[in-house]
Amino acid sequence: MKHSTVTLMSDFGYADGYVAAMKGVILGLAPETTVVDAAHAIPPQDIQAGAWTLAQYAFEFPPGTLHVAVVDPDVGTDRDGLVAVAGGHVFIAPNNGLLHWVMRAASSFDVRRIRDNVHRDGDVSSTFHGRDVFAHVAGILAGGRGDWASLTEPVEELLVPDWGEVRSEAGGVVGQVVHVDRFGNLITGIHRRYLESLGRSGVRVQAGQESLGGLRRTYADAPAGHPLALIGSHQHLEIAVSGGSAALKLGIRRGDSVLVTPIR
Amino acid sequence: MKHSTVTLMSDFGYADGYVAAMKGVILGLAPETTVVDAAHAIPPQDIQAGAWTLAQYAFEFPPGTLHVAVVDPDVGTDRDGLVAVAGGHVFIAPNNGLLHWVMRAASSFDVRRIRDNVHRDGDVSSTFHGRDVFAHVAGILAGGRGDWASLTEPVEELLVPDWGEVRSEAGGVVGQVVHVDRFGNLITGIHRRYLESLGRSGVRVQAGQESLGGLRRTYADAPAGHPLALIGSHQHLEIAVSGGSAALKLGIRRGDSVLVTPIR
Amino acid sequence: MKHSTVTLMSDFGYADGYVAAMKGVILGLAPETTVVDAAHAIPPQDIQAGAWTLAQYAFEFPPGTLHVAVVDPDVGTDRDGLVAVAGGHVFIAPNNGLLHWVMRAASSFDVRRIRDNVHRDGDVSSTFHGRDVFAHVAGILAGGRGDWASLTEPVEELLVPDWGEVRSEAGGVVGQVVHVDRFGNLITGIHRRYLESLGRSGVRVQAGQESLGGLRRTYADAPAGHPLALIGSHQHLEIAVSGGSAALKLGIRRGDSVLVTPIR
Repeated sequence: MKHSTVTLMSDFGYADGYVAAMKGVILGLAPETTVVDAAHAIPPQDIQAGAWTLAQYAFEFPPGTLHVAVVDPDVGTDRDGLVAVAGGHVFIAPNNGLLHWVMRAASSFDVRRIRDNVHRDGDVSSTFHGRDVFAHVAGILAGGRGDWASLTEPVEELLVPDWGEVRSEAGGVVGQVVHVDRFGNLITGIHRRYLESLGRSGVRVQAGQESLGGLRRTYADAPAGHPLALIGSHQHLEIAVSGGSAALKLGIRRGDSVLVTPIR
Repeated sequence: MKHSTVTLMSDFGYADGYVAAMKGVILGLAPETTVVDAAHAIPPQDIQAGAWTLAQYAFEFPPGTLHVAVVDPDVGTDRDGLVAVAGGHVFIAPNNGLLHWVMRAASSFDVRRIRDNVHRDGDVSSTFHGRDVFAHVAGILAGGRGDWASLTEPVEELLVPDWGEVRSEAGGVVGQVVHVDRFGNLITGIHRRYLESLGRSGVRVQAGQESLGGLRRTYADAPAGHPLALIGSHQHLEIAVSGGSAALKLGIRRGDSVLVTPIR
Repeated sequence: MKHSTVTLMSDFGYADGYVAAMKGVILGLAPETTVVDAAHAIPPQDIQAGAWTLAQYAFEFPPGTLHVAVVDPDVGTDRDGLVAVAGGHVFIAPNNGLLHWVMRAASSFDVRRIRDNVHRDGDVSSTFHGRDVFAHVAGILAGGRGDWASLTEPVEELLVPDWGEVRSEAGGVVGQVVHVDRFGNLITGIHRRYLESLGRSGVRVQAGQESLGGLRRTYADAPAGHPLALIGSHQHLEIAVSGGSAALKLGIRRGDSVLVTPIR
């Protein structure tokens, strides 16, 4: 296994040396590899935000890409480090839900845990597995210095969060806001296939106290400052405000419920 | 047309997957290309800030570089997507003024619009042309999979904003602040050639209620905390505060007027 | 001297064109080189934060890497530009303390100043040496277009800051907080070797009014919301709050003292 591209996502931000330290470790082991920054301003320790973000880009890369994702509040405890393979893509991340949305998007997933003795020479730090374990494993795999099987072993239990579950209710479906993006768009866990199951006459969307009417096509399909609902670029129901922030305008936050009912 | 370097600028920020999704699409079509991050913290939907920023770096890259710029509040409407060529550089951006300052800097510009049927396979998203149109076109051009002519057609009308116009007044010139940078420096639309036209005896600069005297050479040419005027690295008149933020200290904002008069 | 990897650190942020302008200059002179972003959100003009950050990643890269670091409040004055070599790594930075912590980490350092006539063609800007001097020199060296000796001359005096000095006191050691990271962790200038010199019975850590007890191993070794002390991934004493921000919780800031005493 050798990877010409390694993507990197983390909550390490852009004012410290943590991200660059990971890049240095990877390039030291795999000098031919290109390291691509995905996003490093995931809110500190916000696994759910990282999980959603990862799923927005991972499968846009060509197969063979190695994706490293580090949002790791339990670093140094006995939580596993994972290596997962899906659709020709390889993922390296802690076993804390960070792979939730890519797993949901993939038709099948092969997951193993990183062996405890796989880390950089010398004492492994207990506070920076991003550098000492995850970047180390990424460098070994990307540089063709070792194979998946020998670095990993079966994982006992995969952490599966309950974010964004969708249930049927009152003839419609109820989901939650699972992500709020930079523009204040409220992205729900309701995939377009749920809406298609509600029939062809159209739907009504309700979020908090707000009735949003039916689905629109673009952000500009409502007057400036007005809220609207549409299927976003991620194929999920999204609530936006034309030219503004739906999060600010509607006071709706991650975890809040959204109800979609069919028009009969 | 094949491009070894593609630069990327956007208002997508660093906490979402939008930027990385664009990178994935480009690398999928042009695996040999290097994608270079320019700046992704352009304030949301702030076309003017993006336009100024783009012009600060585009022509520093070697000819043959492809520059993708996405600040796109009208995504999904019938605003054009542009491909422009100037000085051996290629630009991909929406037709909303984002290319204003690079067009002003270039001696000539050849611009066409992206055909409506040029986008990724399947339904094109109405909310993320950065991924489905601009990155797609960048990947085709960078990977040598298509040529400019076949992807584009003549553009009917180029949007030309009136930012930063300079006019003669009271024996001097009046311009506006067109950009405020991270350090709080106030950058005006007054190019150094306007100042040179005012004669060789020197000038007086006035911004808001503040008289700044003549031109200095470096930020350290005023006592700490004091404002000064100089020709910035972009060849335009700039107002700064030594060791501080001119924007905070003077309360001057983008769009505010600046007057320069000659000393007789 | 030719460098396949150039890292870039600055306080230029992610909303302006300064970083990308530097990349353009480097790639124009060294098209085969890979430019790697280290961190560009160093607080404006905060040399101390930049110096600490640089030392967290520089030596993680393979030898032969060229590191450019620009936090440069005195740009345009007669402060020197430096080129330094240590352990096969090359550093380009202003002579203002930015190399302090990498110099402390290296066993030996060879430093020279950039000659005044070494800059881009035409007038050198007095406000953006990052582009016109540092990136220019980086491009020349990385592209194999010139050698260190001819671009530089002996430096008269190296600026050596007094950050993070550790002294013996009351049978223990006193140091200061030298960096506060994104997570609010308080990192001190007390290297682990000072702690080892205090004996094997363990130590007590005191910061501000707070008694933190002995050293822990991971962030999760205290109950959520409680402070703890440990040796961080940088081999220095660090104060953290489990699942939170030590900076916010304890009200301790950079420069504040930390006392470590042995248990007898």
